[in-house]
Amino acid sequence: MTTSTTALLNDVDLDAVTDLTNAVRSNPTAASTVWRADVTWQGGFQSSAQIRAFPAVHSDEPPALGGNDSAPNPVEQLLAALGNCLAVGYAANATARGIELTNLRIAVKGDLDLRSFLGLRPGHAGFQGITATVHLDSDATPEQLQDLHHAVVGSSPVGHTLLAPIPTSIHLAAGR
Amino acid sequence: MTTSTTALLNDVDLDAVTDLTNAVRSNPTAASTVWRADVTWQGGFQSSAQIRAFPAVHSDEPPALGGNDSAPNPVEQLLAALGNCLAVGYAANATARGIELTNLRIAVKGDLDLRSFLGLRPGHAGFQGITATVHLDSDATPEQLQDLHHAVVGSSPVGHTLLAPIPTSIHLAAGR
Repeated sequence: MTTSTTALLNDVDLDAVTDLTNAVRSNPTAASTVWRADVTWQGGFQSSAQIRAFPAVHSDEPPALGGNDSAPNPVEQLLAALGNCLAVGYAANATARGIELTNLRIAVKGDLDLRSFLGLRPGHAGFQGITATVHLDSDATPEQLQDLHHAVVGSSPVGHTLLAPIPTSIHLAAGR
Repeated sequence: MTTSTTALLNDVDLDAVTDLTNAVRSNPTAASTVWRADVTWQGGFQSSAQIRAFPAVHSDEPPALGGNDSAPNPVEQLLAALGNCLAVGYAANATARGIELTNLRIAVKGDLDLRSFLGLRPGHAGFQGITATVHLDSDATPEQLQDLHHAVVGSSPVGHTLLAPIPTSIHLAAGR
C-alpha cells in the first residue's frame, strides 16, 4: 500500500466513486438512496430549506411577484440544481476518461409563462423549456469532448428528473 | 388614497400579486419570464451557482459520492426548490382566500437509484418518485384547506416542472 502525493486529476476523488460503483455492483440495493429537504415557511413568500446539517437555504420572490427579494426564488434554485448537477457529471466523467478540465461554466436558462401560476389559465405552470449551455476548456479533442458530453447528458440525475415526468405526490398531513 | 398600517395577512403583499395579475391580463406577453443560474465548477464535485446579485449557491457531494461534503448536493437542492415553491403557493393562495396560516412546514423526500448515474445501467438517472408532506396549521375548515391544497398543487411552477417532461437542451458551446 502506498500513499500517493500526486495531485488528483480535476481534484476528483475517483477512488470513492469506484468504491461506490463496486459496492453497488455487488449489492444493487446499495444504489437505493433517499434525499430530503425540510422547508419552513417564514411569512410572506419567504421560506428556508433545511438539508442535513447545512445552513438553511433561504428562498424569496422578487418584488414584482410580491416578495422581499432577499434570496433566489424556487425556480431559480431549480435551474441552479441542474447546473450544479451537470458540473458534477462533467467532472466525474472527464476524470474517468483521463480528461483534464481547465475551466467549466454552465449557463442555465428557463422560460416560464406566469399565467398558470397566477390563476389566469389552467394547465402547465412549470418551465416551458430549459437550456443549459456548457462552456468547457480542455486539451481533449472535440471527439473526446462530445463523448464526454454524451455520457453526462445520459446520466444526469437532475437532467433526467426534468426530462421525464416524475411521480410526485404532494399531500396534506392529516390533523393539525 | 390611504396608507394602511394594518398588518398584512400572512405577511403577503397581495397587492403586488394582484397588480401583476392585472398587468398580465391586459398584456399576456408580460407573463413571459426568463430565469437564469450561472454555474462555475470549482474542482472536484464542487461548484457554485450565481443567481442575479445574490451570494453564490455552493454545491458539493457527500464523501460516499466522492465529494467533500461542504454543501447540499444538486438533487437535495432540487427537493428544496420544490418545498420552497410550495410554501409560496400556500402563502399566496391562502392569502387570496382570506385564510390565515399559523405554521407551514413541508417535508420533501425523493428516491433515487444511483445505478444509472454510476454508469451501471442505461436509462433514467433521475428521481423515481418525490413526496412532499405538508404540515399546515390554520383555523380554516378542512374543506377550505383541501380547496387551498388543490389550488396550490394545480399551479406550482416547480411541482409542474417535475410532473411534466420538460424540453431540456444541454449543449456544448462551440469553440473554446
